Amino acid sequence: MKIRFPLLASFLLIFAAGPALAEDALRDQAKGLFEPIPETPPQLPGEATTPEKLALGKMLYFDPRISESHELSCAACHDLGLGGGDSRSSSIARGWQLAGRKSQTVLNAVFNKSFFYDGRASDLKDQVMRSVTAFPGAMQKTRGGPTIFNPAEPNAAKAHAVEQLKGIPGYVEAFKKAFPGEADPIVYENVARAIAVFETTLITPDAPFDLWLKGDDAALSDNQKQGLKLFIEKGCSNCHKGVNIGGGSYARFGVAHAPAPEILPTDDWGRYAVTKNLNDKYVFRVQGLRNVELNAPYFHSSHTWDLKKAVEIMADAQLGVKLSDDEAAKVTDFLKSLTGRQPEVVLPIMPPSVATTPRPQP
Amino acid sequence: MKIRFPLLASFLLIFAAGPALAEDALRDQAKGLFEPIPETPPQLPGEATTPEKLALGKMLYFDPRISESHELSCAACHDLGLGGGDSRSSSIARGWQLAGRKSQTVLNAVFNKSFFYDGRASDLKDQVMRSVTAFPGAMQKTRGGPTIFNPAEPNAAKAHAVEQLKGIPGYVEAFKKAFPGEADPIVYENVARAIAVFETTLITPDAPFDLWLKGDDAALSDNQKQGLKLFIEKGCSNCHKGVNIGGGSYARFGVAHAPAPEILPTDDWGRYAVTKNLNDKYVFRVQGLRNVELNAPYFHSSHTWDLKKAVEIMADAQLGVKLSDDEAAKVTDFLKSLTGRQPEVVLPIMPPSVATTPRPQP
Repeated sequence: MKIRFPLLASFLLIFAAGPALAEDALRDQAKGLFEPIPETPPQLPGEATTPEKLALGKMLYFDPRISESHELSCAACHDLGLGGGDSRSSSIARGWQLAGRKSQTVLNAVFNKSFFYDGRASDLKDQVMRSVTAFPGAMQKTRGGPTIFNPAEPNAAKAHAVEQLKGIPGYVEAFKKAFPGEADPIVYENVARAIAVFETTLITPDAPFDLWLKGDDAALSDNQKQGLKLFIEKGCSNCHKGVNIGGGSYARFGVAHAPAPEILPTDDWGRYAVTKNLNDKYVFRVQGLRNVELNAPYFHSSHTWDLKKAVEIMADAQLGVKLSDDEAAKVTDFLKSLTGRQPEVVLPIMPPSVATTPRPQP
Repeated sequence: MKIRFPLLASFLLIFAAGPALAEDALRDQAKGLFEPIPETPPQLPGEATTPEKLALGKMLYFDPRISESHELSCAACHDLGLGGGDSRSSSIARGWQLAGRKSQTVLNAVFNKSFFYDGRASDLKDQVMRSVTAFPGAMQKTRGGPTIFNPAEPNAAKAHAVEQLKGIPGYVEAFKKAFPGEADPIVYENVARAIAVFETTLITPDAPFDLWLKGDDAALSDNQKQGLKLFIEKGCSNCHKGVNIGGGSYARFGVAHAPAPEILPTDDWGRYAVTKNLNDKYVFRVQGLRNVELNAPYFHSSHTWDLKKAVEIMADAQLGVKLSDDEAAKVTDFLKSLTGRQPEVVLPIMPPSVATTPRPQP
């Protein structure tokens, strides 16, 4: 009896503490791989956020007059009410041209290490510089080979945007305030700087996963915790890690074996278009998975609208793992815990055009 | 001396009081013609505003998934950051089709007595019913004769919107809350009811003119007061009156003499398309002039982007009056005092599509 009581006590202790210990261990492991979205927007390196720059960037983000047609704004393809991206398989450009790919979410983009599926932009400002030029029909033709831009058109788009903004008195004032001391503040680079500063504010803190990471056991369901465990153990987190659960590296789509051509179209060579290195054929930027539930359809090919199916395809193609239905459902459940508090954006009132403002071109 | 002093006093009194008396007289006259925008949104007749209906209507207003292409929302043509209308000469419909006319402002639309340039809708809900059907390529062909609709297409558009919304679980919940007790709340009419309720909140009180109307002498400049006086004396306010300074009646464009065909295109017969009455040829709804500064281009033909030029054309065509340059400038200055406090709208976060939600059609 002297011996049996402590043994029983130990057993009971381990039985009771087991789940808690296991949860702590999972959390410690997760903390080594992931980081929560911070509560406050980060500063861009070398680009101070001022209220004037922020207000200007917000107006420019929503203003369709930045495009020659006066129909397309950043917000047209990056809808802040719908997860910060398209609600379509491919973005629509001027003349209802279908772009080669859909737009990606602008939410938490500030935490990415590279931009676009092929990583052709290296920071947020660069991303804006390259996106805005897509408007006037200079859409990158990413499918059908490595040709990306008609180089003449982006320059025309930049020239249009600058000419347009110079023709709107309210913007002349707003640029002066946002870029004080500059003799000629309405230049294309400042358009991108202001929009990039606004985009730093488009972050989604307080996702259930982040609350859990910070110690709130109840923030995730048991299913989601098991999904997280699978996400780590099966190897998803080898690439999908960091603050954006991805967005920080590149990988060939089809590491284990190539997916079917409707998932990985053979004529879209991905990062090869940027590096011209054949080793980069079918290499793509690893997608960040924050708010992934809000950002169907999935893959650069927009192949599927079904998150669970996307999880199964990725496990198979990248890891050579056939997930059971239950496993795929649990990983999917975990991914839904990455949906954070969406930014509260008051629509900006934009300065009116005047009689001398350049007109939209159909 | 006994006589001269009172005379001088009277003269001085009149001299000092004259402008104040004149201003009071002008205000009394104006109060008989115009009404300020109220501070709080009105209720629609027979349609109670509830927080749930309002929240739903706001989501629907901004949601491009209401269109088959998932590209066009109410907000696409009625931009609340740009005066509530288009920033273009004509609206763009599916497939980049150019509509026959530009969209009109949704701001203060709740105070209009009829809707569209030809008055084919009689209330806000009816306007929404008819506008939404424009999305899938059923754009009304108002130029080129009296044919307006391909009657099959609006029905397809309505069916699509309903099917789409039923496929989004968040909307199923939102419609239940907005229309409690209804067995099948996702019907097209409820879409229109909710959007109309949201639109009642899009009002712009506290325009300088309204503050002046309420007694604040300093709210208008002297030029603007003279412009108002001209606006009344020359006869503009015969039609442009009431709370929206128009929007309450119809008039032939060209009462005094027909404007040039680039201003009044000969193939757009206006209200005739609705009534089939030849007396209504070239008859249009009198435009409300609230926020007119924000809503270039002007006329159903989008002929001019220059408000002063629009004033001169109207005086000439409708009243047979050739305004001097100074008079036109003063009336224009007065019209700019009709720009009110723009609504502060927090972008709604819309419920996500799921794997089974109907897909966008290009």
